Amino acid sequence: MTKAPVSATIITIGDELLIGQTIDTNSAWMAQELNKLGIWVKRRVAVGDVYDEIWRALDEERKQADIILMTGGLGPTADDITKPLLCEYFGGKMRVDEAALENVKTIFQKYLNRPLLERNLKQAEVPDVCTVIQNANGTAPGMWFEKEGTVFISMPGVPFEMKGMMQDYVLPRLPSIFRLQSVVHKTLLVAGIGESFLAERLMDYEASLPDYVKLAYLPHYSLLRLRLTGRGDDQAAVLAEVNRLFGILQEEVADVMVINEDITLEEAIGKNLVRQGKTLSLAESCTGGYISHLITRVPGSSAYYVGGVVSYDNSIKEQVLGVNADTLDNSGAVSEETVWQMANGVRQLMATDYSVAVSGIMGPGGGTADKPVGLVWIGVSGHGKTVTQKFNFRFDRTRNIELTAVNALNMLRILMREHETVA
Amino acid sequence: MTKAPVSATIITIGDELLIGQTIDTNSAWMAQELNKLGIWVKRRVAVGDVYDEIWRALDEERKQADIILMTGGLGPTADDITKPLLCEYFGGKMRVDEAALENVKTIFQKYLNRPLLERNLKQAEVPDVCTVIQNANGTAPGMWFEKEGTVFISMPGVPFEMKGMMQDYVLPRLPSIFRLQSVVHKTLLVAGIGESFLAERLMDYEASLPDYVKLAYLPHYSLLRLRLTGRGDDQAAVLAEVNRLFGILQEEVADVMVINEDITLEEAIGKNLVRQGKTLSLAESCTGGYISHLITRVPGSSAYYVGGVVSYDNSIKEQVLGVNADTLDNSGAVSEETVWQMANGVRQLMATDYSVAVSGIMGPGGGTADKPVGLVWIGVSGHGKTVTQKFNFRFDRTRNIELTAVNALNMLRILMREHETVA
Repeated sequence: MTKAPVSATIITIGDELLIGQTIDTNSAWMAQELNKLGIWVKRRVAVGDVYDEIWRALDEERKQADIILMTGGLGPTADDITKPLLCEYFGGKMRVDEAALENVKTIFQKYLNRPLLERNLKQAEVPDVCTVIQNANGTAPGMWFEKEGTVFISMPGVPFEMKGMMQDYVLPRLPSIFRLQSVVHKTLLVAGIGESFLAERLMDYEASLPDYVKLAYLPHYSLLRLRLTGRGDDQAAVLAEVNRLFGILQEEVADVMVINEDITLEEAIGKNLVRQGKTLSLAESCTGGYISHLITRVPGSSAYYVGGVVSYDNSIKEQVLGVNADTLDNSGAVSEETVWQMANGVRQLMATDYSVAVSGIMGPGGGTADKPVGLVWIGVSGHGKTVTQKFNFRFDRTRNIELTAVNALNMLRILMREHETVA
Repeated sequence: MTKAPVSATIITIGDELLIGQTIDTNSAWMAQELNKLGIWVKRRVAVGDVYDEIWRALDEERKQADIILMTGGLGPTADDITKPLLCEYFGGKMRVDEAALENVKTIFQKYLNRPLLERNLKQAEVPDVCTVIQNANGTAPGMWFEKEGTVFISMPGVPFEMKGMMQDYVLPRLPSIFRLQSVVHKTLLVAGIGESFLAERLMDYEASLPDYVKLAYLPHYSLLRLRLTGRGDDQAAVLAEVNRLFGILQEEVADVMVINEDITLEEAIGKNLVRQGKTLSLAESCTGGYISHLITRVPGSSAYYVGGVVSYDNSIKEQVLGVNADTLDNSGAVSEETVWQMANGVRQLMATDYSVAVSGIMGPGGGTADKPVGLVWIGVSGHGKTVTQKFNFRFDRTRNIELTAVNALNMLRILMREHETVA
């Protein structure tokens, strides 16, 4: 007998989500973690700090899902709506939770070095009909309710606090309550091919998949993630079949595949650098430090990343990176010659094996007829060779910066792959 | 007579939002723009690429809102669900839209340099019961439906494409259809005070607000945004009252206010630098280029930002920034002496008026008993003076990087303010 998939709804509470002041990053993370357990997020709903709206959302969503996860509405300046509402919804009375109170006091003493206010103490009050989820990273406790077979979980909206509660308590507990299907994801990353062309190429492959395995196209700038998801009761069987199908998929996209794992391009490059025992430096003009940020947000990047120069002004290209004044005068800062010299300059300055250099016009200002907004030159250097390429992006400043970074990292990846093939 | 507030629901369609592969940034932007027009977003709902789920969401949300905005489900590899569904929902037949077809052909010719596929051509098909919203930035057209007083708008999920349609067509058209209330927002930014303490201080002020003006606390790392929102039929009266109340609010928070506009800290610093006619350079270790990225994502930042050095490895601190080898040996890379020398070193290297330097341990690895994860030294230099400060953050790598950046920028802002006061 096949188990019915266990489903969840995520309800986010707070006016800040409806007036657009806050981007909801919590839901994506929660959905990923629930998915790994075999729990399918059917819907996500955001409502404001309005009593009737929250109540109605609870009533509606419980008809559809086995698990209702709520975030937000619990901060010290929240309008005291969510907690009393939950108390009434589940028919309880408010009480002070001693462990939560101790936690509030400890956080104020240890980190905040400020006197406790009445509204901080109130955070330790909870309905007496819930199991308290202690908050290792903040003052507001979480709450776990059960009613007529449905589990309701209320957590703070602060990402760090919510994640702590999910990891320490919620995710370990759910499998003991629900009989969960096995879900297997296998993901690979491709670059240099459009979504529709890839779909055309994979049409027969996709048609050949059994109905319990799905292929998803997940575009991310000039990269694409391809994700196979299989689900079923027999974990070993699902895993074996997904692995077999993933092997075929890798053959189908061999020429455009970046890596056969669900990691980012900068993580893939980091792994390659560690494996090769090589180092990297960056010379960024138009991306202004963004590539360096991508590289260094990966834990452990200090093992291979030596450093970078953000040469925003031409004087820095000349004096720190050693670009010729003549080159800047004659060819300009956004030119093949300049990024060639930037790439070699920073590689020598920082004594690294590889380097990347970018120079371009990100907009909205700064474009000319000759050199319009979106024009970018990228150079990558290493293994006795420097490769340059010109790009024309057609987007806004933010997306032009991101596309420049992704393409620069991809050029580095290709140069490193050549190195491996030759070596 | 008071007009009823016009309300909207945003429905996002796509499995990628429910499996957590994509973070929804569209909804926040759309909510902000709708708010400016006086349209209140009541709910946001995300559903998967499932026929019944989309249909049910349309049925439910139209009972609650005057305007239903949909994004997603229109790409060339979407499972052909959303467009046929809308066609059926509104009782139409599919037809080819000539302008949309021309647009698909032009984009392929001009930018993609690839042959057109059947599935690309299909993107020009639309239900004959909608007004077509042409897509200046992509191949999938948008659709505008009206039914029993409710407006339904379907747009692609690609942010750049959706924004173009909203700006060129949707936002200008909505006020001609609905009688909209006036909404006035006034926002200021404060730093260096906790949310609960500020709420305590502003308790009387908040109680004094008329019921058509609301105060919202919008935390953003160690900064807080305070937003006053007034709404009503008489625009001039609402504006006058909100301005008066905003004046009082500014007095209440004068000692902690960063700026009395709805801009980011890095934008505020950019404005100050332009006004003072001064320049900036950065020396980043633990933030790895993130501060530089924040500064340069502001359009026009090349007017005051000269450049930066990401000195991830100690050799770069020493050789490029001129930090003493003895200092690094004796005090270590994460020390007051080192950031002092980094700040002065980069300011001299790049010949700028101001500079910022940071060095710390972001985690998860790299901590010791003496220097635990979260320890950060920040130095800011300029106007004949260098100020250093030590921080202990207690979060994960991503948040430690962000908190370091915000605190570094805030220290720079304070140093610049002293300069102004003295000058």
